[in-house]
Amino acid sequence: MRDVAILGLGQTPVGEHWDLSLRDLGAQAIVSALKDAGIEAPQLLVVGNMLSGSLSHQENLGALLADYAGLRGIEALKVEAACASGAMAVRMAYLAVAGGMVDIAVACGVEKMTDGSSEETTTALAAAADDLFESDQGISFVALNAMLMRRYMHEFGYRREDFAEFAVNAHRNAARNPNAMFRRPITPQAFAEAKMIATPISLLDSAGIGDGAAALVLGPMDLARRLGGAVIRIAASASATDSVALHDRRDPLEVRAIYLSAQRAYAQAGVGPQDIDLFELHDAFTIMSALSLEGAGFAPRGGGVRLALEGEIGLEGRIPISTMGGLKARGHPVGATGVYQIVEAALQLRGQAGENQIPNCRLAMTQNIGGSGANVVTHILERLA
Amino acid sequence: MRDVAILGLGQTPVGEHWDLSLRDLGAQAIVSALKDAGIEAPQLLVVGNMLSGSLSHQENLGALLADYAGLRGIEALKVEAACASGAMAVRMAYLAVAGGMVDIAVACGVEKMTDGSSEETTTALAAAADDLFESDQGISFVALNAMLMRRYMHEFGYRREDFAEFAVNAHRNAARNPNAMFRRPITPQAFAEAKMIATPISLLDSAGIGDGAAALVLGPMDLARRLGGAVIRIAASASATDSVALHDRRDPLEVRAIYLSAQRAYAQAGVGPQDIDLFELHDAFTIMSALSLEGAGFAPRGGGVRLALEGEIGLEGRIPISTMGGLKARGHPVGATGVYQIVEAALQLRGQAGENQIPNCRLAMTQNIGGSGANVVTHILERLA
Repeated sequence: MRDVAILGLGQTPVGEHWDLSLRDLGAQAIVSALKDAGIEAPQLLVVGNMLSGSLSHQENLGALLADYAGLRGIEALKVEAACASGAMAVRMAYLAVAGGMVDIAVACGVEKMTDGSSEETTTALAAAADDLFESDQGISFVALNAMLMRRYMHEFGYRREDFAEFAVNAHRNAARNPNAMFRRPITPQAFAEAKMIATPISLLDSAGIGDGAAALVLGPMDLARRLGGAVIRIAASASATDSVALHDRRDPLEVRAIYLSAQRAYAQAGVGPQDIDLFELHDAFTIMSALSLEGAGFAPRGGGVRLALEGEIGLEGRIPISTMGGLKARGHPVGATGVYQIVEAALQLRGQAGENQIPNCRLAMTQNIGGSGANVVTHILERLA
Repeated sequence: MRDVAILGLGQTPVGEHWDLSLRDLGAQAIVSALKDAGIEAPQLLVVGNMLSGSLSHQENLGALLADYAGLRGIEALKVEAACASGAMAVRMAYLAVAGGMVDIAVACGVEKMTDGSSEETTTALAAAADDLFESDQGISFVALNAMLMRRYMHEFGYRREDFAEFAVNAHRNAARNPNAMFRRPITPQAFAEAKMIATPISLLDSAGIGDGAAALVLGPMDLARRLGGAVIRIAASASATDSVALHDRRDPLEVRAIYLSAQRAYAQAGVGPQDIDLFELHDAFTIMSALSLEGAGFAPRGGGVRLALEGEIGLEGRIPISTMGGLKARGHPVGATGVYQIVEAALQLRGQAGENQIPNCRLAMTQNIGGSGANVVTHILERLA
């Protein structure tokens, strides 16, 4: 096992890209990451994607994107872990480089969600839940999260307005990120008055639907040092699973895979939550932000919302989250999201986060969640001097 | 990098499993492979599957199968490479063990094709082709292969009856495999008279649609020796890509990814085609058998069909193929096929292939193809004394 570094990164803006196909988006991100790294010939491409088969009628995505990125012939595949597909692609690329099987691997997360109608997209996204015992029974993915949020409010005595800061913080940061989908600040009042989707989840609790692609070039540490520039080490890469169906869990508010995946990452990096300078978490819904902060050890059970209420999740707070807008406001092209999170964390560590820069950050954590916490992938990145 | 061995294997029969769901099939194969290995706690599950999103409305398949196989909490993911998804899952599990990142990994290929209507399944399978430039233009996956076969016949002067032995051999072997879908021998005359699907491809040139799952447990060589029994080493694991669309290739009859993937595997194992005792190739269509034999170096260009005509592909021929029935007659549950191939090759090396046993075999090669040769995964297995 050898140390792995991020050699290059690329991303497209997140949005409704009516003029770009799935392959255009993926190839743009890959080519841009290779250019950033100054590398031409990777040996492996791992594509993270969830919906290409159902929305774009296109599988074989590894081979397709390798070809369109000018890499015909190399090894390539797609990995799927629902909305955690992106970070899982990074994890597979990491495994190949860390184990010494390949020297240069590219991980690309891509999703083209506007290829489907709104109804088709909702149906396709429900495949992240348990088909037989959840989605076939008529429950949508938002409704599953609404049950979690309602239970959380009941258990810990919060009102839905108490979740506002998660969305307000995300939009504030997205306004200054040129790649974000929703670049406008929102007020707590707008949050309180937002249209309901599945009570108590409103439009402003939820990440929107968008297209986008992001990519990372990974390689061994000694190559990163030779290439020069800021050296970003992947200090930890870990994942864990739980039941797909919510009703199969002892306590739905203790998302076991969030906890396990974070603990495995902390152990690998030899650090704890107190050492982390920023946390790109999976804020597909505000309730998921709260559960992630708790499961990863930044707040006690029921304390995630309190952390937000106390102003500790902003860029100058104790644990900044969604620093470039998060899923909520940068946008959530599902299979691409996990790669966007790592690209953004790496930009922070490089000191290239623009107006959203967190000063002197050295350790960043990212966490990508598939389903209602069924598959969770955690990475810890470290900037070396 | 360390040597990797096959510690256990499992499979369900291939067929129309109206009483078993996607998760039932996958879990059965995984549990059966773990039992065969005498192992209870793997750290990683890699699931190979192509169609679960479009036909069963179920993604997040890694987490789901981990849970239903009693492994909740471990790392799990799905990989997709069209019809090569199964062998790609084995390759990812191999990478994780070879690199020392995990000790025990399970690879499971699973496909539940009867969840869709015949039309839905045909549409879903077309996602292996290029959506924009092939399937959206109305060409089915069979039609792509029909063009290849017609070109091959034109170029090398064969009649379609000359391809009969590929199907006759596959059915002969399937008749003696209890897990095969089509357990009845066929005659060259039946082949000649078979109903056309896309001329010159008939029903008996084509693998059928079926459900099934197969699984392998991989671990380090030293553990295999401690567990006892026949030790099967993965001597090579390699893959390569080509353009997804046929018209993007200089010569459609030279399937570049078949060649590249085989060459990489030979180099890794330090052997050549003359050393291989049996070859489980991807006979989704008879034309693919011919192109595979040629690309992998068992016959010169245009010589694949001749090898079959000369009787060299049977159990006692120079290079036995489809020894347990192949895709044609064991059945082709697409994302599971690559794992079935390796399970069957391992059974041959263990001396457990029953009436289809090839005497004294030591080196077996398997090759799984995604799309019309867009993604090809090759493994070489070696029985150690």
